Amino acid sequence: MERAAGTGLPPDSRSKLQARFKQIRSLTEALVEPLSDADASVQSMPDASPSKWHLAHTTWFFETFIAREFLPGYQVFDARFAYLFNSYYEAQGQRLARASRGVLTRPTLEVVRAYRAHVDAALLEAIAELPAKAIELVELGCQHEQQHQELLLTDILHLFSLNPLEPCVWQARPREAGHRPEGLDWVAGRAGLARIGDAGAGFGFDCEGPRHDTWLAPHALATRLVTNAEWLDFIEDGGYRNPSLWLSDGWAWIKQGDIQAPLYWRRRGDGWTRQFGLDGASGLDGAAPVAHISYYEAEAYARWAGARLPTEAEWESAAEGFEPWEGNFLDSAGPARPMAARGDGLRQMYGDLWEWTGSAYLPYPGFRPAGGAVGEYNGKFMSGQFVLKGGSCATPRGHVRASYRNFFYPHQRWQFTGLRLAKDL
Amino acid sequence: MERAAGTGLPPDSRSKLQARFKQIRSLTEALVEPLSDADASVQSMPDASPSKWHLAHTTWFFETFIAREFLPGYQVFDARFAYLFNSYYEAQGQRLARASRGVLTRPTLEVVRAYRAHVDAALLEAIAELPAKAIELVELGCQHEQQHQELLLTDILHLFSLNPLEPCVWQARPREAGHRPEGLDWVAGRAGLARIGDAGAGFGFDCEGPRHDTWLAPHALATRLVTNAEWLDFIEDGGYRNPSLWLSDGWAWIKQGDIQAPLYWRRRGDGWTRQFGLDGASGLDGAAPVAHISYYEAEAYARWAGARLPTEAEWESAAEGFEPWEGNFLDSAGPARPMAARGDGLRQMYGDLWEWTGSAYLPYPGFRPAGGAVGEYNGKFMSGQFVLKGGSCATPRGHVRASYRNFFYPHQRWQFTGLRLAKDL
Amino acid sequence: MERAAGTGLPPDSRSKLQARFKQIRSLTEALVEPLSDADASVQSMPDASPSKWHLAHTTWFFETFIAREFLPGYQVFDARFAYLFNSYYEAQGQRLARASRGVLTRPTLEVVRAYRAHVDAALLEAIAELPAKAIELVELGCQHEQQHQELLLTDILHLFSLNPLEPCVWQARPREAGHRPEGLDWVAGRAGLARIGDAGAGFGFDCEGPRHDTWLAPHALATRLVTNAEWLDFIEDGGYRNPSLWLSDGWAWIKQGDIQAPLYWRRRGDGWTRQFGLDGASGLDGAAPVAHISYYEAEAYARWAGARLPTEAEWESAAEGFEPWEGNFLDSAGPARPMAARGDGLRQMYGDLWEWTGSAYLPYPGFRPAGGAVGEYNGKFMSGQFVLKGGSCATPRGHVRASYRNFFYPHQRWQFTGLRLAKDL
Amino acid sequence: MERAAGTGLPPDSRSKLQARFKQIRSLTEALVEPLSDADASVQSMPDASPSKWHLAHTTWFFETFIAREFLPGYQVFDARFAYLFNSYYEAQGQRLARASRGVLTRPTLEVVRAYRAHVDAALLEAIAELPAKAIELVELGCQHEQQHQELLLTDILHLFSLNPLEPCVWQARPREAGHRPEGLDWVAGRAGLARIGDAGAGFGFDCEGPRHDTWLAPHALATRLVTNAEWLDFIEDGGYRNPSLWLSDGWAWIKQGDIQAPLYWRRRGDGWTRQFGLDGASGLDGAAPVAHISYYEAEAYARWAGARLPTEAEWESAAEGFEPWEGNFLDSAGPARPMAARGDGLRQMYGDLWEWTGSAYLPYPGFRPAGGAVGEYNGKFMSGQFVLKGGSCATPRGHVRASYRNFFYPHQRWQFTGLRLAKDL
Repeated sequence: MERAAGTGLPPDSRSKLQARFKQIRSLTEALVEPLSDADASVQSMPDASPSKWHLAHTTWFFETFIAREFLPGYQVFDARFAYLFNSYYEAQGQRLARASRGVLTRPTLEVVRAYRAHVDAALLEAIAELPAKAIELVELGCQHEQQHQELLLTDILHLFSLNPLEPCVWQARPREAGHRPEGLDWVAGRAGLARIGDAGAGFGFDCEGPRHDTWLAPHALATRLVTNAEWLDFIEDGGYRNPSLWLSDGWAWIKQGDIQAPLYWRRRGDGWTRQFGLDGASGLDGAAPVAHISYYEAEAYARWAGARLPTEAEWESAAEGFEPWEGNFLDSAGPARPMAARGDGLRQMYGDLWEWTGSAYLPYPGFRPAGGAVGEYNGKFMSGQFVLKGGSCATPRGHVRASYRNFFYPHQRWQFTGLRLAKDL
Repeated sequence: MERAAGTGLPPDSRSKLQARFKQIRSLTEALVEPLSDADASVQSMPDASPSKWHLAHTTWFFETFIAREFLPGYQVFDARFAYLFNSYYEAQGQRLARASRGVLTRPTLEVVRAYRAHVDAALLEAIAELPAKAIELVELGCQHEQQHQELLLTDILHLFSLNPLEPCVWQARPREAGHRPEGLDWVAGRAGLARIGDAGAGFGFDCEGPRHDTWLAPHALATRLVTNAEWLDFIEDGGYRNPSLWLSDGWAWIKQGDIQAPLYWRRRGDGWTRQFGLDGASGLDGAAPVAHISYYEAEAYARWAGARLPTEAEWESAAEGFEPWEGNFLDSAGPARPMAARGDGLRQMYGDLWEWTGSAYLPYPGFRPAGGAVGEYNGKFMSGQFVLKGGSCATPRGHVRASYRNFFYPHQRWQFTGLRLAKDL
Repeated sequence: MERAAGTGLPPDSRSKLQARFKQIRSLTEALVEPLSDADASVQSMPDASPSKWHLAHTTWFFETFIAREFLPGYQVFDARFAYLFNSYYEAQGQRLARASRGVLTRPTLEVVRAYRAHVDAALLEAIAELPAKAIELVELGCQHEQQHQELLLTDILHLFSLNPLEPCVWQARPREAGHRPEGLDWVAGRAGLARIGDAGAGFGFDCEGPRHDTWLAPHALATRLVTNAEWLDFIEDGGYRNPSLWLSDGWAWIKQGDIQAPLYWRRRGDGWTRQFGLDGASGLDGAAPVAHISYYEAEAYARWAGARLPTEAEWESAAEGFEPWEGNFLDSAGPARPMAARGDGLRQMYGDLWEWTGSAYLPYPGFRPAGGAVGEYNGKFMSGQFVLKGGSCATPRGHVRASYRNFFYPHQRWQFTGLRLAKDL
Repeated sequence: MERAAGTGLPPDSRSKLQARFKQIRSLTEALVEPLSDADASVQSMPDASPSKWHLAHTTWFFETFIAREFLPGYQVFDARFAYLFNSYYEAQGQRLARASRGVLTRPTLEVVRAYRAHVDAALLEAIAELPAKAIELVELGCQHEQQHQELLLTDILHLFSLNPLEPCVWQARPREAGHRPEGLDWVAGRAGLARIGDAGAGFGFDCEGPRHDTWLAPHALATRLVTNAEWLDFIEDGGYRNPSLWLSDGWAWIKQGDIQAPLYWRRRGDGWTRQFGLDGASGLDGAAPVAHISYYEAEAYARWAGARLPTEAEWESAAEGFEPWEGNFLDSAGPARPMAARGDGLRQMYGDLWEWTGSAYLPYPGFRPAGGAVGEYNGKFMSGQFVLKGGSCATPRGHVRASYRNFFYPHQRWQFTGLRLAKDL
């Protein structure tokens, strides 16, 4: 679940880029700080990767595409790492099978940290001299690492969720159960011709463009995300037991996995009153937005509520008035968690939770994959997945924008995913 | 793989409907004529159903939604058939698991024919008296049966393809290898605002509407379908061995299934020179359009050819100038097979092969599922599938129209599927 | 599940063999008489084969090992059948995958009957002239066909058991529920040195020998088989819910398959009161022996009863005083079913049900597989299976003897399997 | 893969037992010494357990069956560990699924060491006062821990074998390729009545008894184990490609897993010249016994060699003249590996490698499982497995005896398994 080729050199000066590079690389290491060598090495499911692997793979990216290509005399840290830490770049040769990442108890976390330091030193020194093409790749590598910061958090959360001891990555003020959310209102969206996709002003992945026209039917968006309290109503109304609410594939999925609630909800004698997060187990806050739901669940909820999911274009069009760096994002290592909506009008567009849209992840008109090895992808994942918008509390602040397209399969829910309702007008 | 609720009563008079009902019911039986009881009973894979099941299920539809509801004193043929021959209508109660349809050696083919005769007699007599609501359901049942006629043919073809004896359903003039196709040209499509979806003039399934505006980018469509000869070039150029041509899921699919050619191609010592069809095994006709390919294959071919698949809207917009009942369709029982394109300009839009589009099967703006049990569906299948347009040589003539939306998963290819290239202008 | 190589020519004169050949071949056809083409073609699970396949495979055996080898000028019926109807003789070349036998709707049942007639005619004419080596193979072919007669019955029973219509192969006097069995007594077996295995007087499969000494500890056998009424007590005492009664693999097996009763028992509102058989569905006869149980179930029951299963040697030693052609065996086409024990002392040793022993199916000391292609096997199956003794109501009379070793995996139960208790003294 | 209930109190005085307890507990910790927290936490396959789990589970055994039962005022270290570290004792309540042991990154290795220290302190102090029943359980716990010492080594070897970096647990003098083994001779075994099974003089598991008579046919055993050089001959003669050498299940197993050599052999350009072990990757020593082979492979090799595997009784009878504490066993933490045979006559009976026998793991006549929770098992595993005898280089010295019965499924080969040939006389 990863993207690659970007286009266009950001306007950052080289020293700004250097600072940014340092900041991003440091944050990754801060995220891993509370983890033991074992925590960082175990793979909890094929979809997830060990934290150590994230640490090394992001470093491999900088080493492979920049240090080895552009730094004369660069000394490769360990030639075998190319095999271990390539993710899916076919052009970069053989690689360890994805589901086998958990056998890599060696190299140890310490060695991987040394690997990071080695590559960082080489790059930091070189940034001032790198050609423009390489500078573009540094920016891309930073964006890539930010994506892995979020995956690292969701993967470690998944691992800890399976441990009966309910480990807590970061202490936090306990969440309390029983809050009720604010009322839900609707805001009409723009109808008719709209222009969406990457405008080219800053960094963007290839799949975000080209910018193009699209036609929007009259519609409205809910002012905030659906909450835990509302989801409880859905459950109590038999939402998970009524096949007429579900997509056919979704019904098969809940039957096969005996799905009865969002991924990290916990049942006690008194019902669904607890949830698990990066801050360990705590009460289920009714006012907070419901998180860790699949597309199937989001879609079933929307049908139950007499509504639907927004399309990607509707969402993107509505997001235009908002600043993408404002919202509940990841600023530093800590217990990322979605928060109850506050304020008036359309809110929570950015941050808190990735919002499932009803749009399939497919190429925009005129889409061309970026060239070269780093541009091998994005297009490669364009079947069977749905688009999510807006970023989450685990997304590094500044990483997303209106045109940003995240994508997952409809059954996946270990990411910080939520939903906003939409309706036809 | 089936659709249900229609809207709007067609303008046919009752006597026309009676004639149409008889003609459609007869054609189904004619299709089964060459089959033995065993041929009609075996299920070759979970996606396919036995012919006998198709015969009975289409009859169950008329019995359940019309005879039992609207015919006073109607005598149910066998009460247990409701369990055996319901497909997926949850509202109609329990049903045999889809993958178990092949255990039904009883009722025999003869009993199922008697079941058909019983229901036909009751309905034919009643059509003159039925209320409008029931007449609508008769029309829907006819449309439904036409869909199953095509499935019946593709399912029996699949079964016979697994038999080392290569049984032939219908004798036909042998196909010859070695033809070369006509040249391939491009025709520019309409750009800008377009209106697609069911216009409501005749019968349409719920998912075809509402009619709505959409925006088309400048583009062109290939004048004909891709041919066997061209596909051989793709294979010889290493098309199935080059991961950069494939979607990630598609590459996993060909690796896992060791896919090296379209589903019914056969390799001899001299290469891919044979194919299997309803007329048994014969030479591979280079000028005929390539058939029985998955979306993954279609998409990889298009990338190899420097093109892409058309979107649903592009296809539908281009189809406006054509009569949907003209083309290579199914008129009577016989060895349906796609034919080489003839003539000038855009051709083969209707008939020959279902054309994969690059559009996911998702609801149109404002879509509302039809009400009642027959309208339980269509919407239920809106995840993970792609739209196909235009009908095939196994589609009964008159069944499709521009707004018709067929849909399958990207790995499925036992239907009569092919591809037409498109490109951006 | 099949055996091959025999040793030693039986004393039958050629004319007796001819009569025996005709009788056996006719019985097979009589067994298939009530079946439709579809009944005879469908494969209900990978362990089972279609009746048509049994008809053809037994014929293939005679054609391959005798007609083609020993009959000058023999005309092969259809050269492709070698591929279709070989079971597992690696030395005889490629063959259809076992799990694909159900796709063979062609050749039809009629063609297979013609195949049988063709080979029968050739052999019957030739028996008078065949060399001794070929005569031995005719005897082996007859034994082989008898094995398939039983498999044919158990496979068709399995197929019909999956059909919600509960088809009945042969009408029979209905079985009644509620009988209680006779009391169960114990008979001490011989202790000390015993001699078991094929004595070489008549036909025997290679795995039955060599005859050899073995040492028996003091023990006793139950006078009759365990009954349905007793099994109900086991169920009511929580037998299927108590892990301490089960082998570890057996517990996993019942959990995974949600096993709660013997294979063909049927639950109604009033509990386990019905069973399914070749005579359709009927009442559960408490006095009849419990049938269609796995080794895991037999072993758990024995533990629950404070007893154990007999060893193969104990059983064989006890069987010495009995005539192996007396008992409830298959004499002609009809609803084979196990009957309540009658009389005194040790009974039901032969016929009624195959008795699970606690002995693994492993080679006897000095075992050597028979030579040649027909002798390829028996030894090949010597891992993971348990021995069953005594034949069943579906075994052709005269087919078994004390040294006969049947074998199945511990989870299999679609055969006519039952259990007799044993205990240490 | 674990055994429990023992019978009979060993004659050790309490102080000897105390010393023995300390020595065994220390050895376990020494084995884990070279491992990182991650090495000790990852589960490489469902059959294997993390080292940390072995450390904790053996401790849980002492805590559950002795400390909690017999030590007044004993303070449980962490009540949740009962759920985490129970293996399969149904009577001890719920437990973590076996395949999920690898998610336990917490408790950390350090905490588990503290758990060990806590229980050790409590027990060491108490041994002088414990009642006889508890002393028996301490002895049993020591035996149990020794079993886990061997599993710990084989499990960590398996994990490291999957790591492309080929980690080395213990440095050792490199093994060299190319040696040839000593010649192989035969020694006749005893024939006629023999007495095997636990004689009751020292500790023994329940499944080793009762001691009983058995009858041996004339036979001979090979003087030493089969070697790597001989196995290479088997491979070069097409051993893995000839179905007539294999059990049917074995052939399916090698086809499905593409098995071409023993588990830890490594192919280079020049063929099978390397092997992987606890000392990392090194040359393949032709004179050393071939290790890490399945029963299927051992049996196929024996057939190829015109021989067979010994029965359990033959092996046990032959072992009588040997001291079970002499041989290549585990004495201290280090790179356990099998060594070339030296000397004359029958050798390598004890140590080096567990020897597959041709005997199924089934109860001895008169077998009764030991009572109580610790005696829940052994009998529970008596289906589908084969017996292995003699211990290996990874078995703690003094742990085995002639009557010791190890058992594994025929496809398993991550243990230190080898083979000795036998033949009929």
